[in-house]
Amino acid sequence: MSKLELMGEKAKKASYRLAVLNSTAKNNALQKVAVKLLERSEEILKANAMDLENAKAKGITGALIDRLTLNSQRIKAMAEGVEQIISLPDPVGEVVSMWRRPNGLQIGQQRVPIGVIGIIYEARPNVTVDAAALCLKSGNAVILRGGSEAINSNKAIVSIIKEALDEAQMPDGTVQLVEDTSRETVNEMMKLNKYIDVLIPRGGAGLIQSVIQNSTIPVIATGEGNCHVYVDGDADLEMGERIIVNAKTQRPGVCNAAETLLVDEAIAERFIPQALKTLRDLKVEIRGCERTLELFEDAKAATEEDWYTEYLGYILAVKIVKGIDEAIEHINKYGTHHSEAIVTENYSKAQRFLREVDASAVYVNASTRFTDGFEFGFGAEIGISNQKLHARGPMGLKELTTTKYIIYGSGQIR
Amino acid sequence: MSKLELMGEKAKKASYRLAVLNSTAKNNALQKVAVKLLERSEEILKANAMDLENAKAKGITGALIDRLTLNSQRIKAMAEGVEQIISLPDPVGEVVSMWRRPNGLQIGQQRVPIGVIGIIYEARPNVTVDAAALCLKSGNAVILRGGSEAINSNKAIVSIIKEALDEAQMPDGTVQLVEDTSRETVNEMMKLNKYIDVLIPRGGAGLIQSVIQNSTIPVIATGEGNCHVYVDGDADLEMGERIIVNAKTQRPGVCNAAETLLVDEAIAERFIPQALKTLRDLKVEIRGCERTLELFEDAKAATEEDWYTEYLGYILAVKIVKGIDEAIEHINKYGTHHSEAIVTENYSKAQRFLREVDASAVYVNASTRFTDGFEFGFGAEIGISNQKLHARGPMGLKELTTTKYIIYGSGQIR
Repeated sequence: MSKLELMGEKAKKASYRLAVLNSTAKNNALQKVAVKLLERSEEILKANAMDLENAKAKGITGALIDRLTLNSQRIKAMAEGVEQIISLPDPVGEVVSMWRRPNGLQIGQQRVPIGVIGIIYEARPNVTVDAAALCLKSGNAVILRGGSEAINSNKAIVSIIKEALDEAQMPDGTVQLVEDTSRETVNEMMKLNKYIDVLIPRGGAGLIQSVIQNSTIPVIATGEGNCHVYVDGDADLEMGERIIVNAKTQRPGVCNAAETLLVDEAIAERFIPQALKTLRDLKVEIRGCERTLELFEDAKAATEEDWYTEYLGYILAVKIVKGIDEAIEHINKYGTHHSEAIVTENYSKAQRFLREVDASAVYVNASTRFTDGFEFGFGAEIGISNQKLHARGPMGLKELTTTKYIIYGSGQIR
Repeated sequence: MSKLELMGEKAKKASYRLAVLNSTAKNNALQKVAVKLLERSEEILKANAMDLENAKAKGITGALIDRLTLNSQRIKAMAEGVEQIISLPDPVGEVVSMWRRPNGLQIGQQRVPIGVIGIIYEARPNVTVDAAALCLKSGNAVILRGGSEAINSNKAIVSIIKEALDEAQMPDGTVQLVEDTSRETVNEMMKLNKYIDVLIPRGGAGLIQSVIQNSTIPVIATGEGNCHVYVDGDADLEMGERIIVNAKTQRPGVCNAAETLLVDEAIAERFIPQALKTLRDLKVEIRGCERTLELFEDAKAATEEDWYTEYLGYILAVKIVKGIDEAIEHINKYGTHHSEAIVTENYSKAQRFLREVDASAVYVNASTRFTDGFEFGFGAEIGISNQKLHARGPMGLKELTTTKYIIYGSGQIR
């Protein structure tokens, strides 16, 4: 057995014990994790400093370094995140429905943990704590495989988590870290169907696509968000401007930020110059279709590639469309089925947009930025699923469970 | 674009139109399918005769020929199956829940079709009708890839279905058959992520494993059932015998039939000789553990391989265990997480079995044979899922849908 198979076997064994734990036991363990993360901050920061030094030596800069960097404030935020997860209701054990059949069989559908979850992510040490806490609270064992740049931080964090879980008498194998961050080992992990029930990649489009292409384990794809705001001919134009400005600029680096603005030709002349000026003043680069360029000069010409692009920054593609049909067609063709919004006062067009746009979350008269576990009222999430199987939209604790049928009989046979 | 990509594109376009159809329109189309299948029976039988001739020329015999064979009775059953699907409620459009957030956003989770479903199956022409009807009723486009032995039957059936759907003005591309049954084409199909949202393999373990190993599209695995009946020390032994006899012999060739009997050592001497004699008299071959052989001579010795085997026939593996702990451990280790039963009058052991056994359906005092869409009260199903993501247990119309969040705002921004 390889090292990874041994980890898998251990995780599977742990998962059977975790599945029958009550919430109190799991919350106690999480409480110990939160406390210990704060107590042992120094240790984590020291490991993180090594990672940062190595990263800088490799010439890594910018956003990557920012994501990798920990400080006492960020460790405090991690511990608070764990506290928040403690306060959420435990989904395990809920009987979603139960009914009696004519033969007297009583059949119930009950929520149970998935089993063993594999998380493949990049160099963000906060994901380590977050994913471990969400998986434990939902009764799952977890195998974490973070980016090599964060390996020292992750080792420190996981060793602290393990110590806390040991003290709380959680089963050995509840939280494990793949310390060998080689490509061969992650490839082996993606084919460990015998032990891992689901893989959740967290990170950029490249990582997610690579997991989808290489995994034989079921994957829940999260994250890619090429989101649109469509300002319809019957829109309140002030609302339209407010919504696209918010969806584009409130936090451009996240998946539910807008990347393309679609404008109905009926109001383009009135809407485009004013709205794009506001965006331009907020440092947003505009890439417009030909007709957009006629109405707003300070813009580049958009290429076909732009309609497909998730900029995750201060760039917005803008296209004037003939109306709702072209808007829906554009979104379903170029979008990533994440979050899509229409701004309109027209009842029928609002209803059509909700019905015909194929996405995890479809909005009328609101910013796409609300697609988020907290904004939806679910609490912490492991990601935003933009695929169709199992879970779609913000994936909270409930989405980390499956169900089983429990059947109470009295000797029934067929 | 390859021929398959063109089919995919057509299916995707059709899926957007199907998603917004009301139940009445879909039911009318299905009604035309049912009528036309009966009217054109001769045509189907003629095509089927060609398939049978080719199969026999290739030396195919037995169960395979039986599954491939159509007759007017079986075509009538197909049409009746379509009628049953018409009578089931349409899951599309159901708002599973809806709530209002503090900022006034009204968020609802609504059931919508998955989109394009690919079905990969063996030489069973009845699956063609069944899968097409279930997918259409749930608002999905479907691409069917049946076994090469049934190609003439499938072509005839799909051409009749298409004619009916055309008359009912269903979109072109609603139901399509992959006529090229080569290995290359099925491999291409398993990687058509751009157009196919989910693949459902229907057939034996080999087919299912091959799809899991080769597909980059999300797969819903169905079918493999190495099911157990555990007769506990506190069982009503007559009930225990009745249940194992039913679970083994009522229809041995299906996935929810029992393959292994586990017997608590506390009642082994009283239970084994009588129960195994009854099974033996029903032509069931017994493969027992050492202790079983001591209590029942007319049995072969079971090997380690037997505990893993889904016989799908008149063979039963029998093992004497130390009690419920060993029974649960055995089931979780060797089983396929399909359907598992305990026979006991002991409350605590019943509860433990329900909680600790990791399977789609877990029974107390009832035969495993009830894991079935009709027996559960769901109606026709596309298969029994024994995996954990998306759907577990009988997959009816509801399991052929996903959800999307619909959000009604009044100008909210973050």
